[in-house]
Amino acid sequence: MTATQETTISELDTARSRFREELVEAGLLVPSSVEGLYGRSGEFEDIVDTIDDHVKAAGAAEHGYSAPRFRFPPVFPREAFERTDYIASFPNLTGAINTFDGDNKAHAALLADRSDGKDWDHHLESAGTMLVSAACHPSYSMMTGTLPDEGRLLDIYGYCFRHEPAVDPARMQAFRMHEYVRVGTPDEAIAHRERWVGRGLQVLADLGLEAEAVIANDPFFGRAGRMLAANQRNENLKTELVVKLYGDLDDGTAVVSCNCHRDHFGHTFDIRTADGEPAHSACVGFGMERIALAMLRTHGLDRRRWPASLAV
Amino acid sequence: MTATQETTISELDTARSRFREELVEAGLLVPSSVEGLYGRSGEFEDIVDTIDDHVKAAGAAEHGYSAPRFRFPPVFPREAFERTDYIASFPNLTGAINTFDGDNKAHAALLADRSDGKDWDHHLESAGTMLVSAACHPSYSMMTGTLPDEGRLLDIYGYCFRHEPAVDPARMQAFRMHEYVRVGTPDEAIAHRERWVGRGLQVLADLGLEAEAVIANDPFFGRAGRMLAANQRNENLKTELVVKLYGDLDDGTAVVSCNCHRDHFGHTFDIRTADGEPAHSACVGFGMERIALAMLRTHGLDRRRWPASLAV
Repeated sequence: MTATQETTISELDTARSRFREELVEAGLLVPSSVEGLYGRSGEFEDIVDTIDDHVKAAGAAEHGYSAPRFRFPPVFPREAFERTDYIASFPNLTGAINTFDGDNKAHAALLADRSDGKDWDHHLESAGTMLVSAACHPSYSMMTGTLPDEGRLLDIYGYCFRHEPAVDPARMQAFRMHEYVRVGTPDEAIAHRERWVGRGLQVLADLGLEAEAVIANDPFFGRAGRMLAANQRNENLKTELVVKLYGDLDDGTAVVSCNCHRDHFGHTFDIRTADGEPAHSACVGFGMERIALAMLRTHGLDRRRWPASLAV
Repeated sequence: MTATQETTISELDTARSRFREELVEAGLLVPSSVEGLYGRSGEFEDIVDTIDDHVKAAGAAEHGYSAPRFRFPPVFPREAFERTDYIASFPNLTGAINTFDGDNKAHAALLADRSDGKDWDHHLESAGTMLVSAACHPSYSMMTGTLPDEGRLLDIYGYCFRHEPAVDPARMQAFRMHEYVRVGTPDEAIAHRERWVGRGLQVLADLGLEAEAVIANDPFFGRAGRMLAANQRNENLKTELVVKLYGDLDDGTAVVSCNCHRDHFGHTFDIRTADGEPAHSACVGFGMERIALAMLRTHGLDRRRWPASLAV
């Protein structure tokens, strides 16, 4: 690492930590004892709702009708999680849910360990569920089988979890994502991804944000992950819409993600198009908290002083 | 168990399972491979929003102003969870979150176990977080210290998790609760609980539901729990508003809960009133999915045929 890089990283950390302090002081976010977990104030939620109005309008304009809405809870079956191979690609972001399933005696043993200040996790076992890591993940298992001729379009909005504690308020462990998911032929999937790059940039422009579309990759884990990331970039499967929250101190924050999954979910969940081929899928995901933070960073923390079209 | 009881339980199971089938066939709920986890359709969400409009109106009418809103994610710090002693009282409902925090080599070992069809949970460790089991739980740690003279009133809405897989669609593992939480003197807490019994019954009546207030207890775990439950009933700390979803086959389903916590949270989180005493707290929690299901059961699955004031 060069001296310049060190300076920049330190300035970036300072900028992130100062932004977080400002958000907390303004009462927009409530901190907790864990990095990346915050309560949201009513005002913060109003901003999220304003953003969502724009997202919904863009969805209706893009597709010419209201896509069927599905709202999944933040927890989904481990059996579906297993099929996605997420534990192979993103083990470090995963949230597996454990619970206690024993009797009175086992419970007494748990409490004894706990009162001795010992770890009590070994008294728990898998609850058969996982935290949802992308809003669309719980939706694929409901499409197993043959799609209608025109494929499917879904409007999905829900909480996601990624275990990546960070000072940057824009890197939360729990956050909401609003997605439009297209499942159909390879061409339909590619077109969905492509069209939402432009449509997403328009949504951000309407919110007064300067955004840029960049070719990106998922943060695949470890050595093997580097190859997966390179492939994803080479095949141009992921485009992120990026807003600079911290000036030139970093490359910006991805607030929208446009992804083509090829036949990954079609193959995994046995979803077939009308002609019997494995379905392809694509999704656009709006990171609601990140867009809200980008707006607060761009327009200031006092919403009454925002541009008239976005103010309260 | 008598023959009559057996018949009744079997009839009850049939009634629950039939109601679930109807909800799935109508597209209101999307089943998953795990009991008690469902996707919600847009129409189901519209019903939840209608209910919430009534809850918010009741909150404004009861308190004369809009209580500050706080929205917490479905995951909160284990350190705060530990302080509540929830693992002692409700271990079987708990959701502890584990993640992978190892290196490439440890990940390879996890994947090797997985591909051999072996359990891979022992490669994970605590993520330092827990699933939220009551919407208000994440709020108490932010009140540590001395309250303002008038105490505090909070409007909290969020996802809750309880590990209790069941066929009954009204017993979900993940569901939303809208709460009004009062923290202040003993009298203020008791008055909050008492007043919301009547106010809650009115909300349910406005939604066309026949509800009844009954003295209740939490489902404390095991032998020791039976005493805690008896105490809670004797001290009249919990009142549930109950609607009969399955006629006389059971005692009805609790859709709203009015609770006085005494100084449990004040003591645990060191929250003091202006005069230095441990704060008392009380909350009313509206179970949004359960109320929606009660409405679907009462008014029918086709919302266009609902009473004019509640229809689309």
